[in-house]
Amino acid sequence: MKRPKKTPARDGANPMKALLEPESVAVIGASRQTGETSLNIVENLLGYDYGGRIYPVNPKAKELLGLNVYPSIKDLPEKVDLAVLSTPRHLVPGLIRECGEAGVRVVIVVGQGFRDAKDEEGEQLHQEILQVVEETGVRVLGPNTIGSANAFLNFSTSFAKNQLERIPVGLACQTGIFLGRIHGQGLIGKGVDLGNAADIDFVDAMEYFETDPQVKVIALHIEGIPRGEKFLRTAERVSKKKPIIALKTGNSGRAAQSAMSHTGSLVGKSETWDAALKQSGVIRVQDIDELMDLAKAFAFLPLMKGKRTAIITLSGGMGIASLDALDRYGLEPAELSPETRNRLEEIAPSWFVIGNPLDIWPVMMVADAPWVDTYRMAIHTLLADPQIDGLILIGPTWMEYISPGISEIIVEASEDAKNKPVASWLYEGWLFDINDVDIELKVRSKGKGAIFPSPERAARALGRLAEYAELSGKK
Amino acid sequence: MKRPKKTPARDGANPMKALLEPESVAVIGASRQTGETSLNIVENLLGYDYGGRIYPVNPKAKELLGLNVYPSIKDLPEKVDLAVLSTPRHLVPGLIRECGEAGVRVVIVVGQGFRDAKDEEGEQLHQEILQVVEETGVRVLGPNTIGSANAFLNFSTSFAKNQLERIPVGLACQTGIFLGRIHGQGLIGKGVDLGNAADIDFVDAMEYFETDPQVKVIALHIEGIPRGEKFLRTAERVSKKKPIIALKTGNSGRAAQSAMSHTGSLVGKSETWDAALKQSGVIRVQDIDELMDLAKAFAFLPLMKGKRTAIITLSGGMGIASLDALDRYGLEPAELSPETRNRLEEIAPSWFVIGNPLDIWPVMMVADAPWVDTYRMAIHTLLADPQIDGLILIGPTWMEYISPGISEIIVEASEDAKNKPVASWLYEGWLFDINDVDIELKVRSKGKGAIFPSPERAARALGRLAEYAELSGKK
Repeated sequence: MKRPKKTPARDGANPMKALLEPESVAVIGASRQTGETSLNIVENLLGYDYGGRIYPVNPKAKELLGLNVYPSIKDLPEKVDLAVLSTPRHLVPGLIRECGEAGVRVVIVVGQGFRDAKDEEGEQLHQEILQVVEETGVRVLGPNTIGSANAFLNFSTSFAKNQLERIPVGLACQTGIFLGRIHGQGLIGKGVDLGNAADIDFVDAMEYFETDPQVKVIALHIEGIPRGEKFLRTAERVSKKKPIIALKTGNSGRAAQSAMSHTGSLVGKSETWDAALKQSGVIRVQDIDELMDLAKAFAFLPLMKGKRTAIITLSGGMGIASLDALDRYGLEPAELSPETRNRLEEIAPSWFVIGNPLDIWPVMMVADAPWVDTYRMAIHTLLADPQIDGLILIGPTWMEYISPGISEIIVEASEDAKNKPVASWLYEGWLFDINDVDIELKVRSKGKGAIFPSPERAARALGRLAEYAELSGKK
Repeated sequence: MKRPKKTPARDGANPMKALLEPESVAVIGASRQTGETSLNIVENLLGYDYGGRIYPVNPKAKELLGLNVYPSIKDLPEKVDLAVLSTPRHLVPGLIRECGEAGVRVVIVVGQGFRDAKDEEGEQLHQEILQVVEETGVRVLGPNTIGSANAFLNFSTSFAKNQLERIPVGLACQTGIFLGRIHGQGLIGKGVDLGNAADIDFVDAMEYFETDPQVKVIALHIEGIPRGEKFLRTAERVSKKKPIIALKTGNSGRAAQSAMSHTGSLVGKSETWDAALKQSGVIRVQDIDELMDLAKAFAFLPLMKGKRTAIITLSGGMGIASLDALDRYGLEPAELSPETRNRLEEIAPSWFVIGNPLDIWPVMMVADAPWVDTYRMAIHTLLADPQIDGLILIGPTWMEYISPGISEIIVEASEDAKNKPVASWLYEGWLFDINDVDIELKVRSKGKGAIFPSPERAARALGRLAEYAELSGKK
C-alpha cells in the first residue's frame, strides 16, 4: 500500500469525537433555500432537534431559520468542533486552512473532484489538503463524503434527511448510502462516510468504536484501505473485543479501477485482502444484504456458543429450507433431548413426527390449550434444551393480531433464551395489513430479538454468530 | 424414484384446469364461524369477488353468508369442478369417494397425517386415496395442502386470505407459504400447493403452464419429485418455451429426512438432481430470495441477449458493489462506445471520469439541464449504445418526488430499452415517506421494469436472464 501521504500533525485526540459528538458545528456555504426538497443541512439539523450550537456561514446572508449567519469561519464566537464544507473544489484547501487557523478540529469536505478525478488538478488539490492538515493540525473527513451521523445525539451532516435509529452499530463507509436507509432498515446508530479517506480513515473509526459503550458491532464498507498495516493491526486488536463486519468492494479488476476513480483508493488484490482480513478477525461479507443482516444479528442477539440449531416453524416447507441453509452456513441441526421429546409427545397427535425442524402447526391444531400457547410452550421447551445452542423461529405475520402477538412472542423468546440467539423469520401477508418490517421495528424497540428477511438469512446470521464466538474465544 | 403409486385413471383433461379455473367449488366441512380471524374459506371467496358458484357443505347448517348450505356433496345441484376437503384424516378416503361418485373433477385435501405421518395408518390412508383415484377417476391435490389460487379469477381456496396479484408467474410448490406473500412481495399470479403430491404433481403443473397465455415464467418449490423421469422429460420440453425456476429443498441428509415427514417425499441425492435439473434446462436457485427475484425478472424484463452490462448510479460506491456482482453472476462490464462517451463528455465536468459504472451525480450537479433530465438523458444514451446488452439502474427513492418521479423514469427506461433488460435498485430513505416496495408496485402496475432489493441481486437477475437466453437459444 504505497501512498504518498504525509503523517498529519495530531494532537492525540481521535477526530471521530468531533465528528460524532460535536458540541458546535459550522456549515460553510450554508444554503439560503429551505423546505423539503432544498437539501439544507442547517434546516435538517434544526429538524432533528440536535442539541449543539449551529453556525451557518455565508457572506451573502445575515439570518437563516432564526440563526445568525456569519460572513466567514473567522467570525464565529467560538472555536467549533466541526465544519461542513460544500464548495467548488478549487476553494477547498484555502477554506480548510482558514478553518485550521480558526481552531476548527475537523472539516468535512463534501465536494468531489480530488483524487477521485481524472485530472492533475484533482491530485494536486488532494496534496494541498494534506499539506494544510500537516501545517495547521486540523483534521479532514473526505473529500467526497456525506459526513457523519449519530442517532444518539440527533446529529447528521448529510444534506439528505437521515432516518436515525439508536442501535448499537458503529459504521465507517466510503459511500453516503449507508448513512441513509436501505430497504426499510436503518442500519446505523452512528457512523462516518470516509469518502476518499484522504486523512481520517478506518483506523480512526475502529479505534473510536473500540471503546464506545454505545457500539456493540462495527460495520465497514471498504473500497480501499489506507495505512494497510496499521489497519490490520488495529482490526486484530479490536475484533477480539467487538465483531467487525466488512463489505470490501472493488474486487474485480474493473471494480478496482472504478474504486480508484470513485474515492481515489488503491484497492489491492482481492485474494491478499481476503486472507489478511480473515487473519485479523474481520468477518468479510459478500453483499449489502449480508452486511445489514449481520449488523442486526450482532447488535441484537447474543453470540451462539455452539453449532446445534433448532428450528420451530408453522410451515414444514420453510423448516426444510432452513435446514438446507444450516448446512450451508456451518451449523448443525440439534438432536432434541429426550425431555424435549417427551414434553412435546404429551400434546402432539399420535401420528406426529417430533423432529427438528419442529413443524408445530399440527400440534397447535389439536392441543387443548389456545394454539398460541402451544407455540409458546414449544419455543420455551426448545430454548430450555441443553442440546440446543440457538433457535430459528418461523411464524406468520398475522399472528401479530392474536394475543400475545408474534412480536411479543419473539421478545419473550429472546428474554427466555438468555444466552442463546433466536433468529426469526416471518412470512407475510394473508390476514390484515401488517408486514414483517413493522413487526421488526416493534421487536427492535424492545432491544431483544431480530427478524431476518428469509429463513436462509436467519440461518446465515446464526452461523456467523457461532463463527465469531469460536474465533474470538467468547464461547 | 421407487414409488408404490398406481397410475390413476385419467380422462385426459389436465386437473390444473379445475384447480385454477373452476366454475364451481364446494367447500366440504364449511366453517360456520365468520369474521376476520375465522379463516373461513367461503367468506374469503366471497370477499375476493370470485365469479364462480360456491357450495358450502355442512350437515349442521342451512345457510352461510347468504348461501345455501348442503348436507352432503351428493346433494349439490350440479357436478362441481372442485371440492375443498378439510376434515380429520380417517374420513378423507370415504369423502373423496363420495366426491368422485358425485362427479367432482378435483378434490383438494387440506388435512395432514398421511404419508407425512410417522404411523402405518397414515401410509394406509395414502394408499386408500390412490385407490379411490384409480377407481372413480377423481383427481386429488394434496393431501397436506393449502390448495390453489388464481389472481386473474379472484380465486383462492386458502383459509388464509391471499394477496392476489395479476402477474405472469405460474407456481407449483409444496408449502402454502408461497401462495401468500413474502416480504411485501406477491410472487404469484396463479398456482397450486401440491402438498404431499400423492396424485397431482409437478408434471401436471408444468404441462398446464406450458400453454397458459397468462404465464410467462414457471416457479417451482420442490421437496421431492414424483414421476422423476417424466418430470425431467417435461421440464426439458417446457423450459425451451418458458423459463422454469426451481427451489429444490431437502438437500442435506437431515433435510431429506424432514422432507420425508413433511410431504412424504422421496427426495433423492442433491447432486443427482442438480445435474438432472440442469440438463433439463431448469434454473435452480439457492434460496427464497433468489426464487422471488427471478420470478420477477422473467415476468417483467426481456431476456438479455449478451453479457455486456452497463451500470448507471447516483452513488459511486454502489456502482462498484454492482460491478463486483457482475463478475459473480457471469456478466461483463460493457465498454461504452465512443458515441456514448462523446455525448456524456459534452455535459460532464472536465475532471469527471466517464466510465462504467457511470456515476452520474457530479454531471447532474453541473449540467445546464434540470438534473432529473440529465439522469434520463444518460440512461437513454446507455440504452441506445449497441455495445450494451442490459442496464443496472441505481437511484434514490426520494427522486419519486421530483417530476418525473423515479417510478416513471424506470418505466420510461424499460420502454426505451425495448429488448434490453433494465434491473433497478433504489436505495431508500432520506426525504419523505416512500419506500422501494411502494415504488415497485407503481412500476409493476405498468407491467414494465423490475426493482430488486439490492444492487447485487439486480446483477444476479440480469445474469440469469442472460444465461437462459443463451441456453434456450432465445438470443
